[in-house]
Parts: sequence; C-alpha cells; structure tokens
Amino acid sequence: MHAGRHYPLKHVILWTRRETFAFAVIAAVPTVLYATGWSWITVPWLPIALIGTAVAFITGFKNNASYARLWEARQIWGGIVNTSRSFGVMACDYLLQEPGLCGPAVDLAAARDGLIARHIAWLTALRFQLREPRAWENIGLVHNAEYRRYYQIPERDNDYLGIELGKLLTPADCAAILGTKNPAAQLLAQQSHALRDLRERGFLSDYRHVALTDALVELYEHQGKCERIKNFPYPRQFATLNLLFVWLFIALVPLGLLQEFSKLGDGFVWLTIPAGVIVAWVFHTMDKIGESTENPFEGGPNDVPITAIARAIEVDLREMAGQKDLPPLLQPRGEILM
Amino acid sequence: MHAGRHYPLKHVILWTRRETFAFAVIAAVPTVLYATGWSWITVPWLPIALIGTAVAFITGFKNNASYARLWEARQIWGGIVNTSRSFGVMACDYLLQEPGLCGPAVDLAAARDGLIARHIAWLTALRFQLREPRAWENIGLVHNAEYRRYYQIPERDNDYLGIELGKLLTPADCAAILGTKNPAAQLLAQQSHALRDLRERGFLSDYRHVALTDALVELYEHQGKCERIKNFPYPRQFATLNLLFVWLFIALVPLGLLQEFSKLGDGFVWLTIPAGVIVAWVFHTMDKIGESTENPFEGGPNDVPITAIARAIEVDLREMAGQKDLPPLLQPRGEILM
Amino acid sequence: MHAGRHYPLKHVILWTRRETFAFAVIAAVPTVLYATGWSWITVPWLPIALIGTAVAFITGFKNNASYARLWEARQIWGGIVNTSRSFGVMACDYLLQEPGLCGPAVDLAAARDGLIARHIAWLTALRFQLREPRAWENIGLVHNAEYRRYYQIPERDNDYLGIELGKLLTPADCAAILGTKNPAAQLLAQQSHALRDLRERGFLSDYRHVALTDALVELYEHQGKCERIKNFPYPRQFATLNLLFVWLFIALVPLGLLQEFSKLGDGFVWLTIPAGVIVAWVFHTMDKIGESTENPFEGGPNDVPITAIARAIEVDLREMAGQKDLPPLLQPRGEILM
Amino acid sequence: MHAGRHYPLKHVILWTRRETFAFAVIAAVPTVLYATGWSWITVPWLPIALIGTAVAFITGFKNNASYARLWEARQIWGGIVNTSRSFGVMACDYLLQEPGLCGPAVDLAAARDGLIARHIAWLTALRFQLREPRAWENIGLVHNAEYRRYYQIPERDNDYLGIELGKLLTPADCAAILGTKNPAAQLLAQQSHALRDLRERGFLSDYRHVALTDALVELYEHQGKCERIKNFPYPRQFATLNLLFVWLFIALVPLGLLQEFSKLGDGFVWLTIPAGVIVAWVFHTMDKIGESTENPFEGGPNDVPITAIARAIEVDLREMAGQKDLPPLLQPRGEILM
Amino acid sequence: MHAGRHYPLKHVILWTRRETFAFAVIAAVPTVLYATGWSWITVPWLPIALIGTAVAFITGFKNNASYARLWEARQIWGGIVNTSRSFGVMACDYLLQEPGLCGPAVDLAAARDGLIARHIAWLTALRFQLREPRAWENIGLVHNAEYRRYYQIPERDNDYLGIELGKLLTPADCAAILGTKNPAAQLLAQQSHALRDLRERGFLSDYRHVALTDALVELYEHQGKCERIKNFPYPRQFATLNLLFVWLFIALVPLGLLQEFSKLGDGFVWLTIPAGVIVAWVFHTMDKIGESTENPFEGGPNDVPITAIARAIEVDLREMAGQKDLPPLLQPRGEILM
Repeated sequence: MHAGRHYPLKHVILWTRRETFAFAVIAAVPTVLYATGWSWITVPWLPIALIGTAVAFITGFKNNASYARLWEARQIWGGIVNTSRSFGVMACDYLLQEPGLCGPAVDLAAARDGLIARHIAWLTALRFQLREPRAWENIGLVHNAEYRRYYQIPERDNDYLGIELGKLLTPADCAAILGTKNPAAQLLAQQSHALRDLRERGFLSDYRHVALTDALVELYEHQGKCERIKNFPYPRQFATLNLLFVWLFIALVPLGLLQEFSKLGDGFVWLTIPAGVIVAWVFHTMDKIGESTENPFEGGPNDVPITAIARAIEVDLREMAGQKDLPPLLQPRGEILM
Repeated sequence: MHAGRHYPLKHVILWTRRETFAFAVIAAVPTVLYATGWSWITVPWLPIALIGTAVAFITGFKNNASYARLWEARQIWGGIVNTSRSFGVMACDYLLQEPGLCGPAVDLAAARDGLIARHIAWLTALRFQLREPRAWENIGLVHNAEYRRYYQIPERDNDYLGIELGKLLTPADCAAILGTKNPAAQLLAQQSHALRDLRERGFLSDYRHVALTDALVELYEHQGKCERIKNFPYPRQFATLNLLFVWLFIALVPLGLLQEFSKLGDGFVWLTIPAGVIVAWVFHTMDKIGESTENPFEGGPNDVPITAIARAIEVDLREMAGQKDLPPLLQPRGEILM
Repeated sequence: MHAGRHYPLKHVILWTRRETFAFAVIAAVPTVLYATGWSWITVPWLPIALIGTAVAFITGFKNNASYARLWEARQIWGGIVNTSRSFGVMACDYLLQEPGLCGPAVDLAAARDGLIARHIAWLTALRFQLREPRAWENIGLVHNAEYRRYYQIPERDNDYLGIELGKLLTPADCAAILGTKNPAAQLLAQQSHALRDLRERGFLSDYRHVALTDALVELYEHQGKCERIKNFPYPRQFATLNLLFVWLFIALVPLGLLQEFSKLGDGFVWLTIPAGVIVAWVFHTMDKIGESTENPFEGGPNDVPITAIARAIEVDLREMAGQKDLPPLLQPRGEILM
Repeated sequence: MHAGRHYPLKHVILWTRRETFAFAVIAAVPTVLYATGWSWITVPWLPIALIGTAVAFITGFKNNASYARLWEARQIWGGIVNTSRSFGVMACDYLLQEPGLCGPAVDLAAARDGLIARHIAWLTALRFQLREPRAWENIGLVHNAEYRRYYQIPERDNDYLGIELGKLLTPADCAAILGTKNPAAQLLAQQSHALRDLRERGFLSDYRHVALTDALVELYEHQGKCERIKNFPYPRQFATLNLLFVWLFIALVPLGLLQEFSKLGDGFVWLTIPAGVIVAWVFHTMDKIGESTENPFEGGPNDVPITAIARAIEVDLREMAGQKDLPPLLQPRGEILM
Repeated sequence: MHAGRHYPLKHVILWTRRETFAFAVIAAVPTVLYATGWSWITVPWLPIALIGTAVAFITGFKNNASYARLWEARQIWGGIVNTSRSFGVMACDYLLQEPGLCGPAVDLAAARDGLIARHIAWLTALRFQLREPRAWENIGLVHNAEYRRYYQIPERDNDYLGIELGKLLTPADCAAILGTKNPAAQLLAQQSHALRDLRERGFLSDYRHVALTDALVELYEHQGKCERIKNFPYPRQFATLNLLFVWLFIALVPLGLLQEFSKLGDGFVWLTIPAGVIVAWVFHTMDKIGESTENPFEGGPNDVPITAIARAIEVDLREMAGQKDLPPLLQPRGEILM
C-alpha cells in the first residue's frame, strides 16, 4: 500500500516508458506512410470513437472489479483484526475454574499465552501462504520487477516461515504443521484440539467452549476468503478480452487521428504522433493501473499491507494479556507499507 | 477456470471464426450493392452510434451480471470450504464422553471418520448435480463443444456418481441416497440422523448437537445458493433482447460506415468491409465472453473449479483427522482447472 | 421463468407490434409534412442524441433495478428452500424424549409429520398471497394478457387456497387460518404454538425449542422480504419519468433524422420512417423488457417460478421424513416454468 | 408511496411549471439578443455536450443514491415487520411457568398483551420521530407544499404522539417516556426492564430471556438504521455540486443550440426556445425526481408508507394474540399511501 | 457534516478560486499564442472528447468510491449507536443475583454505571483516535485549512483525551489505558475483564456473560471497520491516475476549443478562455468534491459527525440507567455538525 499522497510523476513515467515507446512507433508508422503518399490509410473517427467508448466501458468494468477485489481483501484483513481482538479477550476472560467441574490443575495464564502464541503463528503462516506466487500475477513483469528496488516483501526477501513459527510453537507442533498441505488451516485445527483439552480439564464450560470454537470458525472464514481472492484471479476470459481490445483500439487510433488532422492541413498530420501517444497512454495506463490492483496479495506496492496488520494484531493481543517486551509497529519504507 | 495469464490469441480467433465470417458477409453485401450503384443504401452514422451506445450499455449490464454470477458462485464454494473446515474441527473436537450422561460405547474416532466421509460424499454428489446439463447452457454450442478438446469434465467424462459414493458410504446408505430426487440434500439429512444418534448415545450435549446441526444448516445454504445459480439462468428476456440488439446493430453498422467512407472518396467504400468486421467483432465478442461466463457450473473452461476445490477440502479434512494416504491436489490441464 | 434459450423472434414481434405501429405513425407524420413543404420541421441531431443518452441512462438504471428485484426475489425463494430443508431436518431430529423431563406421550413421528404438513401449508398460502394482483402490475396490459395463452398461473387458473390448505391442515386449523388477514403469517404463529405444546410435553428442551423457533423467525424474514417486493413497486415517480422521457425521445427522433437524411438528398428523407421505427423500437423495447421484469410475482412469464420451487421443497421434506407417495416435480409448459 | 401506475401528466406539468417558465426565459434572452444582432453569443455544441454528459453522470449517480436510500428505508421497515412478527410469536409462546423455578403468580396473557401493546407504542413513537422536519428536506418547498392538497401526513395533520401512546401504555409509563430525549429508544429500554421482571418472577428461563432481548437488539438496529437515513442527508457537498452543474448546463444549452439552429438558416434560431426548454426540462426533472426521493421519511408522497406498515403490524400481532376488535388496514388516498 | 440545504455559492467560489485562476492561465496561453500567429496550436475536438469521457468515467468511479466510504463510515457509526443501546439495556437488565450461585455482594447499580462509563470512555478514545492526522488526508491543504474558520474540530481544537477519560475512569484504569498503543482496543479489553469479575462474583450466568461479551465483540467489529477506513485510503495508484488525467485533460481542452471557436471566425477564439475555464472547472470541481469526501474522519466539514453521535449515545445510555444531569445534544455551528 502506498501510504503517501501520490506516486511521483517520475515513477509513473518510468513505469510506463516501455509501452509509451511502443505507442510512438504505432502512431509513427501510419503517419509516415500517409506522408509518403498512402493517403488512403485513414479511417473516419466516429466508429473508432464508438470502439473507444466500448473500451472505456470494459476497462471501467475491470477497474471496478479490481478495486472491489482490493477493498474486499482489506475488509477481510479488517475482519481478521476484529476476530483476533475478540479471540484475545476471550482467551483472557473465558478460561475459568468452573465450580461444578474439576480436572487436573493447569496454569491458566500459560494456557492463555499458548492460545495467543498459536494465533500469531496462524497469522504468520497465513501471510506467508498469501504471498506465494501465482501464474497470473503481475509482480514478475519487467516494469514491476524493476520497481521492487523501492520496497521489500518480508515474506520473500527476509523471513522464513519455519523460523518464524519456531519462535511461537513447540518444536513438535511446529514440525507437524510444516509437514501439512495447508499449515494455516491445520494451525486452527491445533487450536481447536487445545480448546478440547481445556474443556476436558474443566476450565471451559460447554457454552464457552463453543463460543471460542465459533471464533475459530470465523477465522476459517477469513482465511477462506483470502484464499478465494488469492486463488481465483480476475477471470482470464475478461482479461484476455481487455488486452485485445485495448491494443486493437491503440492500433486504430492513429488511423482516425490522421483523418482528423489531415482536415486541418497537410502539415498537421505529424501531430498524429503526439496525439496518438497521449490517447493510447490514457487508455492503456487506465487498464494497467487496474491490472496492478487486481491481485492484492502478490507482493506488489499496491498490496494490502498484511505484514503490518499482522504485527499490529500481535501488539494488541500481547498488550491485552499484559505482556511487556512488545515488538514495534511497522512503518512505511519509501512510502510503501507492506 | 483458466489458470494462466491469458487465453492465446489463436484460440480466440478460432473460437470466433464462424461469426467473423458472417460479419464479413453482412458487411460485404451492402458494400457490393453500393458499388454497383445502390448509392442510397447508406444511413447517417449518428443514429447508429446512439444504438451502439445502447448496445454497449446492455452488453455491459449483461457482462456485469455474468461476472456477478461467476463471482458469487466462487464465493459460495469459498463458503463451502470454510464450513467444511469448521465442520471438520467440530467433528474432531465436539464428540466427547459427557460426564453427566451415559450411553452405549462407540468408537469416537470411527464416528468422526464417518461424519467426514459422509461430508465428502455430499461434496461429490453436489458437484455431480451441478455439472448436469440445462437447456439454456452454452457448453453444447459448436464453438464450445469444439473447445472441449483442450480439457476434460471429470463429472461427465471419467467418473460416475454411484462409484464415487460407493467408496465413501455403506452400501445401504449409498443405495438409499441414489434412489432420491436430490441425493446431496438427503445426504445432509442422513448426516443429521447420525448426529441425533450420537446425541442419544450421550456423546453430544444438547448444545454441541445444535452447534453441529447449525453447520449442516449452513451447508444447506451453500447447496441452495449453488442450485439457485444453476437453475435460474440470466433472465431469458434480457438474453433475447441482447441477442436481437447486437445483431441488429451489426446489420446496421455497414450502412453507416458506407456513408462515412463514401465521404472520403469512392474507392474508400471497400474499407467498409474490414471496418465493419472489426466493429462487429468487438461488440459481438464482448457479448459472447459474457455468455461464456454466465453459467459457472456448465462444465466450460470458465467454470468455477469445483472438482479441484472439493479435492482440496477432502485433503484438509483428512489431514485434520490425522489420516495418512491423502489423494493429491488437482492441477490444471492445458491451463484449465476444473 | 422462461426455461429455454431465448424467446422466439416471432413472439417478440407480436408482443411489440402495437407500439411498433405507433412508432411508424409518429415517424411518418413529420416526414410527410416535410415532404409537403414544411421543411422547417427538423431539429439538429446532437441535442436529441444528448437526450437519447439521458434516456439510455435512466432506462439502464431502471433495468438494473428491475433485474435486482427479480434476482432478490429468486434469492429469497432460494432462502426459503434452505430454511425449509433445515426446518425439515430439525423436525426429524430435534424431537426427543428428554431424560430429565416427562410429559404425556405423543407420537413423535406424527408430530414431525404435522410440522412438515403445516410448513407446506405455509408455502401454499404464501404463493397464493404473492400471486394476487396489484394496481401497478403489468400482467393485465393487453400485450401481456394476450401472452397468457402460452402458459398458466396455477394460483389463479386452476387451484384454490381453501382446497389446498384443506389437504394439509385439520378442519379447525384451516378455518381459523382462512379467517385471518394474513394467512401465511398466522400459519407460522400456529407452528410456534405447536412447538410450545411440544416443549410443554417435554419433547423439546429449552435449547432446541429456541433453535426451532429461530427457523420460524427466518421464515418470517423470507415472507416479509417477499411482501416487500410484492407491495413496494419500482417507485412510481421514476416509472413516470421513464415513460415521459422515452415517449418524448421517440417523438423527437424523427425530427432529428429528417435533418440528417435531408443532408443526403431529398429522396432520402423517406428513410426517416424505417430508421425512426428502429431507433424507437430499440429504446422502447429496452424499457418494456425492464417493465416486464420489475414485478417478479405478478403471474407473468418472467416470474420467479414459485409454484415449482414450492413443489420441490415439498418433495425434499417428505423424502427426508421417509414418506413415499411423492408428487412429481413440475416441468415447464411451452418453456415457461411457473 | 404512490400506489397506482403513474403520476398523471397533469400533475407533472403543474409540479414543474415554475422552473419550466424559468427555462423559457433563460432560452429566450440569448435568442432575442442573437436576433437583435449579437451573433457572437453562441458556443459550439460539442463542449456543451461534454458538460451534458458529465451532468448526466452526476445526476444518474445522485438518483442511484436516492433510490438506494429509499429502497434501504423500505428494507428496514420490512425488517421491522419481520422482527415484530417474530417478537409477537415469542411473546405468545416463550412465557412459560418453568418447572424448576417459581415466583409470584402473574397472568401470562396479560404479560403477553402488555409486551405487544408496548411494541405498538414503540412503532408509534418511531413513526412520529421519523416524520419530524429536518433542515435539508424538500417537503416545505413551494411545489411540494402545494402538492399536499392531494394527501395527508397522519403524524403531522391528524394525530398526536401523547394521545396515541396514552391508548397503549399506563399513565406512569407514558409520562416517563414523553419526558425523554428519544422516546422510541427508551420504550425499548422499558420493554427490556419488563423482560427482566418476567425473568425474576420465573416465567422466562435465562435462555429465553436472552432470546427475547435479542429481538429488542434487532429492533434497536432497525431504529438506528432509520435514524441514520433520517439524520444523515444525501451529502450536501454533492447536492451543491449537482445544483450548480445542472443550472450551469441549463444556462449554456441555449448558446449551443443557437449555433446549431443558426446553421439551418436565420429563421430557425427561434426554435432554440422550445428546444432549450425541452433539454433543460429533461435534465432538471431528472434531478428533481431524485431530490424528491432522497428523504424517504419527510412526509412526501414518495415516502415509505410507514403509517400503513405500522398498522399492518398491529393487526398481525393482535391477531396472533387472539384479540378481536382489530383496526382496519390503511388504504391509499388519491393513490398516495402514507 | 453540512446540516443545511446547500453550501453557499460564495463558499464554493472562494474554495475553488486558486485553481480557477490556474485554468484561466492554462486557457489564455495557447489562445494568445494562436492570436499571435501560432495557428497550428489546435487539436480536433473529438479525440479530446473521448479523453473527456474517460476522465468522466474515472472521476465518476472515484466519487462513487468516496461516497461509499463516507456512507459506510456513517453506517458503522449507526452500528455503534445500535450496539451501544443494546449494551446499555443489557448492562441494566442482565446483572442479576442468580438463585443457584452466590458470591461477594456488589452494588449492582454501581456495576451498571461503571460499565456505562467505561463504554463512554471507549467512544471518547475512539473519536480521538479517528481524528488523528494521516499523510494522505486533505484537511491540511490550503483551501481546506482556510475553511476551518467556519467550524471547529473538538478533538483537535478544544478537548484532550487524557482529561476526558479522567472524568470517566478510575485514575489507575486511566493511566493504564493512556500507556497503551491502542487505548480504545484496550478499553474494551478492560470491559471484558470487568465482565469476568462480575461472572466470578455470581452476578452473571455463563449464558449472559457470553451475551454481554458478544456485544463487546460487535464493538470491536465497529472499531475495526472505522480503523480500516481511517488507515486504508482510496488507493493512491487510482488517486495518482485521477490527478494526472484531470490535469492532462484540462491542458488539452483549450487546444480543442481553439479549433472549434476558430471555425466561427477569428474574433471568436477569445471565447476559448471563458469556455475553457468553465469546462475545466466542471471536471476539476467534480474531482475535488470527491477528494473532500473520501476521508470521512479527517476533521473536515464533510466528516461523519462523530462527536455529535457520541454525545447522543451518552445521553441515551444515561437516560436508560435513570441518571439525571444529562449533557445537551450537540448542535451544528455555522451549519457544520462535527
């Protein structure tokens, strides 16, 4: 997430410089041909404008969907914050020594801290899983790869899941989790087994046991929603359509401009080149911004800042449990917060 | 679901080649007539542009609705993932030997595994039911049938419901289920009878019995939502309107282009044919992509990948229950994941 | 609901023939006047195009709202399916002889079947209430009344509420219900009284009593949502605006076309008539399709198929309860499913 | 709510006659100036069309928001219907003489009727509060005030809150409620105190006590949502923008039309006046209809019919409780249902 | 929130005067150049109109998103009202002396008042946290800073969190809270500890304890949703795009107008300046209004009035608990309600 006012104009220009050059070539070729006598190489502007409107529609539609995906991703992580805090207060205040029940003694504070540590482990596993690459993601494209000089992706560049989990779980639990297909999902199952254990030892009534399990059910929902956005891209049939239409339009624009400028006089046709570049740049950049938004967990600068959110949750939960040596909140680097 | 970056251009061209030929004919006929002297066969472009805008509106509207149907379908299956995992942890940790109650002994692990196996049977029945054909679906159209060379539909091409259920249920349960009108719905009813049985034997308290039944209620909701999308098509009155308007527009476009090109000079009118094909192709393909998206369970390459999701759920649940010999996750074939 | 691929072109033409004739007259009058010398009776096309865009906006808006009403109606009935199935499994598996409580003996199977029969009675009353006429509905308009030759509305043409309820309820209950202002609402109240009775006889714990009542609460929600759509039309102020704008636009179009065609030469002005009819037909039909969609319970061919859904629920519930002589599922007649 | 097919054309004309006159003046002034020689007072149509498109966008946006506000208001009152019916059946069937508890005797039927009467009192207080005036509402504008001859607002014209509550509550309760800042909110608090009282006397278990309180929680939600729509207008910054843009556009239209008509010949410029009025009327009326919809509780003819809905709830609840002398349902007066 | 009918025209003009001057310069430069002979400095209008349409699309899209953010913020605070009232009635009526349990005596009224005071403290902390500045907010821009002469932001201008909390909490609690990273979140954790204490003293059953905790869970949800809107701006990649496109369009408009006006005659080109200013002003102001809406907690005049809502909640809750000396409701100052 960019955490400032705007991306600098310089970054935008650098980020779009490759295709801007292509637009110039696409506009220059017919212009030169026209100037050398192929005066038939023009098309009336009006049908092109109609195609332009159609392109604006589908690009608008795609940007809408991209924005919705990003915003939903942020909502889900908002939900993770909320359920985590709720789970935190329940872990603090639902473990009681029931008068009517008795079981082997257990240190309630240790049980509480264990639940909280395993919860943080779940957050850690989840953010590592969400930042794994997918075939349709754009972060590997040359203009995006180049931009990685301005920020870092903790889950790929610095940290390792095994080490992070090792700080939070017992070695046995950690090993068991790392061997599964979906570590985050199995961490919640471990959490559920721990609650059953507390129930059997008499520190949870049936009713509070179910209330705590309901929090786990909600966490599964949040995780599943994240996985849905991660694993189900903006439909590739629409993306293919967009790609084809935008470039078809960009190829047609200079032909239409040639005709409009040629009406003004012969010297004017050379204005086709800058004008064509501007129109192409507007439509293509509109599309490209949408594309850079549609995968909110790809490790790009427009990602939902899940590393920072996970850290903030950790601080809140440890503060609730009265722990002291809290890690610092994460700050943006170069205006990018991950 | 296409699991790559884009459909190849070659596929798009092949997939639209039949109507592209039709557009050429539709554009050629008035052009030839014009060239042979029927110079009155032109229409001013502006009213056609207005119809084009209206067509863009209703096509955009339809694509919006198609996308919403696809996305909702994916959300529902995301919900099935979540509720399945929740049901899994409850099946593992809610069956307890209550201190205050006593009933005949039962193997809790066997009861748990039975619940999980029946759940997987429900997933299986559901995906078979969702992939049955409907009158309004497009998968049988020639351009889509042809495309089936690139992928396979497990529920139609390889597997059989009876055999799949036979691996998961007792023969008596299996036979009873296969005789009903809606096997998936009756499998959940069987699940509910099993819970009642566990309740009566004293392994579930009233409270946990209701909590597990609530999970079944959620599964009924997911199933009902899938059936809603499966059985209630994009309203045929709107689909009829779209079909008529798009073709009416395609028929009018060459008449308008003739007039625009004839202004440039007589030789230019022949450009009507390529220009007409391009405009028609843009509007028709936009419509056709929507049509290929509106039925997310028809067995097409743009389907929600329900076979793969069901398999992933199976793996998660068996891993939770500590089972070992897990089946592999499904991978895309030719970039199509089913 | 139309359950095929498309409405036949012939039906569309017949269904719109009256206003098509009107459009021809509206376009012919100024054309003839123009041809007889009133050459001032033209208007520049551009302002008309702007009004056309505004009309396209508000018609698109209305079709959006109509579609949303239809889709919500179908969602509600999907919800009715889900809650009905859930209520069915609860009726089967929540009635137990509690160990700690005792009351007069009752046949649990009879209690279960009574709950299910009353539920089907509720479905029946609801669909009769939803298919009653309202002042703003379109089913009585001549083009729609004419179309009723292709299908039948069971709740109006063949069946009677009193007879249908008589098959499901005791004569006393039936008489009491038929005397109330809102039979469906009071049937759920009867259902609630029956649950209280079962609670007092000791076959329901407090907890399961509330769980079953919660299902009734959900059914009230579904019923209330249906009544909202039934009793609150698409706001008449917007509908009035649409009607005025569409016809104002239709009246202006020929004046603008006259000017455009007159630029091409004098003979061309007669093309105003077919062109005017086409433009008018496109905009008016777009509006009319929306109007035919906005009341999803009016008994039209685009209705939500509530008779068929209610029958499917009946079959599912009776199958759950192990009943045998099940009625058949309803099939479309002439591609219309009611 | 208008409960017929359409507002009569005559009403629309009368309702918009003032600004129509203004449009004529605005169009006439530049036309006359032009005719008297100020031929420079024209503007090319195309930039004006672009502004027109922008105006259509923001007006469409506003009408969207207005419709959403109206529809949400109706949904909330649909929710009030549903929760009221649920509360009704709970009031009937949740009050029991618990076997394990005992308290002082109380007439359960009287308790039930008291709960229902207080609920109706809440509905009454709520609809009076919602129909109080706000600074941004339009009902006081001259064209709307004039329209009040066609209908009546019960909460302002005929009834008084104190009298209505006096029929439903004890004098002490009534006096206490009328002294508070938010009578409806405090009525629900009274209802909660009554439930506590029933709980302490042993007629409600802990579990059913909470279930009934949950219904109150839902009623608070409905009330709060109504208050949100009542107290938070369509944002005035957007409304200001709309007002400025529509009138700016209306002022520019005649300048553009002058140029278009002057192309046709000198006599044609006088057509600027009717054409300008039509364009202005279309855009302004579109805006004005939205404005008349955006406050659904202002006491206008497009209000949600909360008086009628409240009455229907009263009838349903009293019928559930077996009461006889029911008041009649409210009917539209002059097609307006309040 | 502006609580009147419209912002005065004078305020709008003052608020936009700086950029209006810039538009005049941008339009004047090419006009003067043209007049001095650079007659090639024109561009055909049609491609500019297409860019204008694209700009209208993305601005409309942004305003949509801004409105959605504002409206969601208001919905969340509506939810805070609802949950607060519910929490209020539960604090009043759920604290009981259970017959089956016994613990040390406590003054139930004091416990109730303590819960309510801590709830008000939470509201206070939340509104202070929400009104802290963020890097992307607009309140510091010169035209907005200037506007602060018309209203005041209580959380920045007059009040201090420490003093406000000191009136509501014990000194120990207050000190503990002020030392944490997120005081509002920790206040709810304190509230939860207080409930645990009441549970252990026997004044809450397990069931009512969980019901009250569920209210805290809901409050965490409301807080988390507010923080999501506060901490996650309208995506800066889209905002950057908007900024660039609007200014690019503004720079191109005079070039297109020059060409249109030059067609009318040489003197007409000077009309480019006022016309260019008007078009630029319309598009830029549309964008700027959206920008002033997108951060609903920045302390601007279009904020959600959270100070006033928090006060209204305080009054309702104290009235429920029978307290007397209530503070007054807040009124708008200069039509701005904060």
